[in-house]
Amino acid sequence: MKEFHIIKPDEALRPALQDKIDNLNKPKGSLGMLEETAVKIGMMQQSLTPVLRRPCHLLFGADHGIEREGVSASPREVTWQQMVNFSKGGGCVNMFCRQHGFELTVVDVGVDHDLSGCAGIVNCKAGYGTKNFLYEPAMTDEEAEGCIETGARLAAACSEHGCNVIGIGEMGIGNTSAAAAWMHLLSGVPLERCVGAGSGLNAEGIRHKLDVLRRAVERSGLKAGSKSCTAWRVLCEFGGFELAAAAGAMLRAAELGMIILTDGFIMTACVLMASHICAGVRDYAIFCHEGDEAGHKVLLREVLHERGLLQLGMRLGEGTGALCAYPLVQSAVGLLSGGVNSFAKAHITKYF
Amino acid sequence: MKEFHIIKPDEALRPALQDKIDNLNKPKGSLGMLEETAVKIGMMQQSLTPVLRRPCHLLFGADHGIEREGVSASPREVTWQQMVNFSKGGGCVNMFCRQHGFELTVVDVGVDHDLSGCAGIVNCKAGYGTKNFLYEPAMTDEEAEGCIETGARLAAACSEHGCNVIGIGEMGIGNTSAAAAWMHLLSGVPLERCVGAGSGLNAEGIRHKLDVLRRAVERSGLKAGSKSCTAWRVLCEFGGFELAAAAGAMLRAAELGMIILTDGFIMTACVLMASHICAGVRDYAIFCHEGDEAGHKVLLREVLHERGLLQLGMRLGEGTGALCAYPLVQSAVGLLSGGVNSFAKAHITKYF
Repeated sequence: MKEFHIIKPDEALRPALQDKIDNLNKPKGSLGMLEETAVKIGMMQQSLTPVLRRPCHLLFGADHGIEREGVSASPREVTWQQMVNFSKGGGCVNMFCRQHGFELTVVDVGVDHDLSGCAGIVNCKAGYGTKNFLYEPAMTDEEAEGCIETGARLAAACSEHGCNVIGIGEMGIGNTSAAAAWMHLLSGVPLERCVGAGSGLNAEGIRHKLDVLRRAVERSGLKAGSKSCTAWRVLCEFGGFELAAAAGAMLRAAELGMIILTDGFIMTACVLMASHICAGVRDYAIFCHEGDEAGHKVLLREVLHERGLLQLGMRLGEGTGALCAYPLVQSAVGLLSGGVNSFAKAHITKYF
Repeated sequence: MKEFHIIKPDEALRPALQDKIDNLNKPKGSLGMLEETAVKIGMMQQSLTPVLRRPCHLLFGADHGIEREGVSASPREVTWQQMVNFSKGGGCVNMFCRQHGFELTVVDVGVDHDLSGCAGIVNCKAGYGTKNFLYEPAMTDEEAEGCIETGARLAAACSEHGCNVIGIGEMGIGNTSAAAAWMHLLSGVPLERCVGAGSGLNAEGIRHKLDVLRRAVERSGLKAGSKSCTAWRVLCEFGGFELAAAAGAMLRAAELGMIILTDGFIMTACVLMASHICAGVRDYAIFCHEGDEAGHKVLLREVLHERGLLQLGMRLGEGTGALCAYPLVQSAVGLLSGGVNSFAKAHITKYF
């Protein structure tokens, strides 16, 4: 498969960044996670005065064979209906993109519906939904490669147009099932802690989803921690097209030094996958949101040892949590780019 | 003292607001606190299409006699130095106001320094700092009344200029001590759970602050829950000028149906005080932030039974937490004001 070369930020700059933040006229550490975010972005850009340019949002949509097993509260048709809705500006993702000045690209990576006549949807179809992973691998190697290439190419296109900060979101009924399988097999967290309500399952529905996933993992023959359980096998076995595209976009974005605004459970699972493919991707990810989907907090806190900027009980997907956190990212960057005086410049007694 | 007449939002509108939110094209409840905030603002404005107009931020500054007891990591002079800094646009509050389009008014309610020559600071001085409440009441009745009037008048002036959403912040070295005493006496929460590090005390400093506050509460003769422990007595005994002004601004803003963006520990203590003066004020408060100052989470969760929109580990004051949450308030209002299609309008299968 395509190789990614992600540059590790040079640690030499970190003390100067921290020093700059500590000399702003405020009690040390009193802006909490905004300060940490500022340092992280300064490190990504290797600059004491980082900048944000032309924010873009990529939304990848696809369907999942596993949806046929009744693992989602929503029917499959919602995927294509929402894609059309997004292309017309009527979704939540559209509102947040407008609010925060993001250019939105809606990408069909494998929706089970012909969307080729739909203006405003980029056609990168790898198929009409993945195979049902209860019975067979969701994707072939070629499909997975193709989707990763698609994501990588679209992220690069954003960069070519001057963008250095990218949101990534998904639309795909059934995709919390794929993400839960990824999380379990890549992290070793027991499956029952990775499985949640998705778009609105009740307790009985969650039990059924867990049962389906248990059988699917068994069918795959993969065991968390075993040598044969490679990221690539996990990716192909469970799909989906849009998740592979998102991982590809993240990998290429990191390679290009872009800031990756990471959304909820599914996109965090994509960061996990991407970082198994090329570890450096995490240095370029801002975790924007800690969602209500059961596995998300576990994945963030216990597996990645991160915290999300927002904790609003959101669980919508589409990248909406990433978009909502953008003003905080702007604030963080503002701290370093001259928005606030230092103690010395403001003539204020430095008291620590 | 001045009486406030706050209109209780008519509950009759609530089901229609909830219904409107539930019919947007997203899984029910999937925007979490954004949805709750939308309903609360719809209720305040008694409208299914609430609007935000000309956001303003009032920053009240004053000094505290209790600072002389070494209860703060910062020296008193930082109050006036910061006020000058704010008037010149160099503080954190300025950056956030610029970022989110707030008109900032910096008000000297009782700073221990002559700021009358300083363009950009509104002079409403009630004195050169409060008295030291370890030995005597911080404010006279007349001073407290005057500060409440000041706050109320300035909030009304914002409204007259077309503003319907107001941030309120403070600058005053020593004011977490006053706020902790307020919280303890108005809520009955033990003093040790109300006292924190303020702008950066270490464990020894916090112990000393707690000891000073214990002796001050004893000196005052007030006991939480006793009949003589009225909000008014608590206000005058512990000050400060800027806290009284903030409470006055909140009361008048609520009377005028304005949205009150509530910041961290100190401003939440002011909401508590204001709601003891006139209960309805809480219906107009959005709790923007759960800060790191020790008493804040206790005050929000256990006393007011609220949650803050942001949990970023901030503890700066100035109203910065309130300002940082404003884009979320805009998102919430956007949900109701046509930013997102309903299921029906988007032609999407409603699946719950």
